[in-house]
Amino acid sequence: MTYSPKLTRLIDALRRLPGVGPKSAQRMALHLLQRDRDGADFLARSIGEAINGIAQCPKTRMFCEPDHCGFCSARREDTGQLCVVENPADLLAIESGTGYRGRYFVLMGRLSPLDGIGPEQLGLPRLIEQLSDGSVRELIIATNPTVEGEATAHYLAELAKARQVPVTRIAHGVPMGGELEYVDGGTLSHAFSGRHTI
Amino acid sequence: MTYSPKLTRLIDALRRLPGVGPKSAQRMALHLLQRDRDGADFLARSIGEAINGIAQCPKTRMFCEPDHCGFCSARREDTGQLCVVENPADLLAIESGTGYRGRYFVLMGRLSPLDGIGPEQLGLPRLIEQLSDGSVRELIIATNPTVEGEATAHYLAELAKARQVPVTRIAHGVPMGGELEYVDGGTLSHAFSGRHTI
Repeated sequence: MTYSPKLTRLIDALRRLPGVGPKSAQRMALHLLQRDRDGADFLARSIGEAINGIAQCPKTRMFCEPDHCGFCSARREDTGQLCVVENPADLLAIESGTGYRGRYFVLMGRLSPLDGIGPEQLGLPRLIEQLSDGSVRELIIATNPTVEGEATAHYLAELAKARQVPVTRIAHGVPMGGELEYVDGGTLSHAFSGRHTI
Repeated sequence: MTYSPKLTRLIDALRRLPGVGPKSAQRMALHLLQRDRDGADFLARSIGEAINGIAQCPKTRMFCEPDHCGFCSARREDTGQLCVVENPADLLAIESGTGYRGRYFVLMGRLSPLDGIGPEQLGLPRLIEQLSDGSVRELIIATNPTVEGEATAHYLAELAKARQVPVTRIAHGVPMGGELEYVDGGTLSHAFSGRHTI
């Protein structure tokens, strides 16, 4: 014996969310039914509105409502800076954590040929257009410092150099407030070889 | 700057799920939009069907589709046993972990006067009806061994005794496979005082 078909289906649907296993899905489903039917209704409507109403900006590839991208503006164009990130969450982290107010380009992933993710899937033809039209005076590469992120950064740098666009990469090293003793070897050797005169 | 209004609303809605904080909600929302729009659609439909199509069985108080409770049957009636649990998940744990195939009664909570949860909220009038009609030959109390669960068990036992229905409580003690050394003091003293001849 198990739950009724509709409840079982709800639990299965919740399991498709990342980081949700069978026990959490069951807890979520029972919580929605027992204590928060309004919340459940709100969630169902929000998902519906999101999948029907959210598109990708043709320029930044950021999720936005059609014809209204919050990250496209003439002021951002004027900076001449274009920052490439892997994911929407990375964009928001930079926007809220730094003073950067230039343009963005969201790859929605990283080069990973084994998974079938090549330049086309990351929208690089769009990026090349922007690099070629003379509007970019600095390409800032902010992909993650993982193997695939580094490979993507290298590929992007080559694209920019071939079009005489100056390229920079955000710095990697010991995090602020971190203690050398507890920093992993890879980060430390990166920080060491990247030392600069002060 | 933050995400577009619809995406922000989706993140807010996901945060209402238990155990989901702002970071997880963001990850879930982006996952649904980026990689699993079918899953999002399935989730929205499943929630809608569940909140509109799932009710509580008037007899067991278990979640079920109207007029079709999987835990009500003549065969279960015939056992004369009625097991009281706090939550639907507890019912399923007993059903899948033990050989018990009698009737159930799901409280959907426990007595907690400070939170305004009294006998009425737990549907006890319904339970009293069943205890009074002579169909129950054993009331098995399987509430959790917490302070509130124990208080609820005590209350239920009094109800049954007043109606000459025999009452039992599931055993509490050292879990199978557990080692005495690592078992908490409360459990151990409970196991010790509850020793029986073998």
